[in-house]
Amino acid sequence: MHIDILTLFPDMFPGVFNSSILKKAGEREKFSYNLVNFRDYTENKHMKVDDYPYGGGAGMVLTPQPVFDAVTDVKKEGKRDPRVILMCPQGETFTQQKAEELAEEEHLIFICGHYEGYDERIREHLVTDELSIGDYVLTGGELGAMVVVDSVVRLLPEVLGNKSSASEDSFSTGLLEHPHYTRPADFRGMKVPDILMSGDHAKIRDWRKEESLKRTYKRRRDLLENYTLSIEDQTVLERIKESEDK
Amino acid sequence: MHIDILTLFPDMFPGVFNSSILKKAGEREKFSYNLVNFRDYTENKHMKVDDYPYGGGAGMVLTPQPVFDAVTDVKKEGKRDPRVILMCPQGETFTQQKAEELAEEEHLIFICGHYEGYDERIREHLVTDELSIGDYVLTGGELGAMVVVDSVVRLLPEVLGNKSSASEDSFSTGLLEHPHYTRPADFRGMKVPDILMSGDHAKIRDWRKEESLKRTYKRRRDLLENYTLSIEDQTVLERIKESEDK
Repeated sequence: MHIDILTLFPDMFPGVFNSSILKKAGEREKFSYNLVNFRDYTENKHMKVDDYPYGGGAGMVLTPQPVFDAVTDVKKEGKRDPRVILMCPQGETFTQQKAEELAEEEHLIFICGHYEGYDERIREHLVTDELSIGDYVLTGGELGAMVVVDSVVRLLPEVLGNKSSASEDSFSTGLLEHPHYTRPADFRGMKVPDILMSGDHAKIRDWRKEESLKRTYKRRRDLLENYTLSIEDQTVLERIKESEDK
Repeated sequence: MHIDILTLFPDMFPGVFNSSILKKAGEREKFSYNLVNFRDYTENKHMKVDDYPYGGGAGMVLTPQPVFDAVTDVKKEGKRDPRVILMCPQGETFTQQKAEELAEEEHLIFICGHYEGYDERIREHLVTDELSIGDYVLTGGELGAMVVVDSVVRLLPEVLGNKSSASEDSFSTGLLEHPHYTRPADFRGMKVPDILMSGDHAKIRDWRKEESLKRTYKRRRDLLENYTLSIEDQTVLERIKESEDK
């Protein structure tokens, strides 16, 4: 997968893209990236990329010309039509499902702007997707692009060493993960539950499923609406509800 | 505000924290940060910070000792009890409201781990908040911590130059923002709506409110449930619903 990032702050990216799993994915040639400062494309003699909004109001608006021309230029390198993704608070809320969809693509272009606003013509005539990573205000689209890239690249084949790691995570199973414990069994008086040291794998599996259902019920009841409960799960969940609602 | 970040990947942060608004906030001494590699705190002779999960299963689990000791150490520097925030997919979903709450604090400590899992005793006995930035799987907590820091620091007094910028953003008003346009009025045949160039401020205000309601209705109907509509808004929204549902 090749990723182009259009940004006014290219220095934000290498520290993130050259660490951990993204670094390994780059070394294994599963993923390459190119940082494009779209200020370099402006035809404005002062190198300005923003201007006052029509109709008045606070803040500056990103002007269309440099963004259109930078996208046209990076598209030339790609084999076929890439997805052009605008990071913005008005976008579709990014989810694991969207990450899986984007992981099927060969070429992604991200446009990172400042949240004062993009000229609407960028939105209407240039982009294929508008994404928001959550309901909070960020300084720019850069962190959002990093989040999307990280979640997508780790899904590419042969990127994660341990195959089961990707599929057992929270949001991949649809439930929040059960608690984990490691050594020591007694850390400063805080102990590991006996069942995890019992060696009884069937009981451990049941305990984990119950804890996972319990945590999801307590913290993220909304996730249960989209989760298909087995008959066994339903019985466990009824028991959890009874004890929680007491 | 002082922020300590516990991470195994400290090199990920400076590119982000030394750019744009965070850089300015640092220069103006509104915000300082300290990166702590908690591997430096391990008492394990191989410098290991993770170990196999009790009860079996894929992936490694972060062991409690280095994290507990690193938090104890950075707490010594603070004036009073800081918030200790664990970034994890099982956490409370981060929102603008939470950003506003955290912006009232003087000292925040972030723990960034790998999503294979934290030892549960970290969660139960060390942290005050568990946060997730969204329903997707990331390689580690680092990007989440950057997102939270960016959204919180930009709310601190005197950080944003233009006071109205913070309050008019999407999620601050409760609705998605209306479209923005800037020069040129005709960009390669794509035109700015006439009303924005009319000079009629009352009409422009009404147009913007209607576009904002329309976009929110089309894209994020869930946000309207928590928004208090004026009588005028209700009339506009009824008209939008009628034309959309045709």
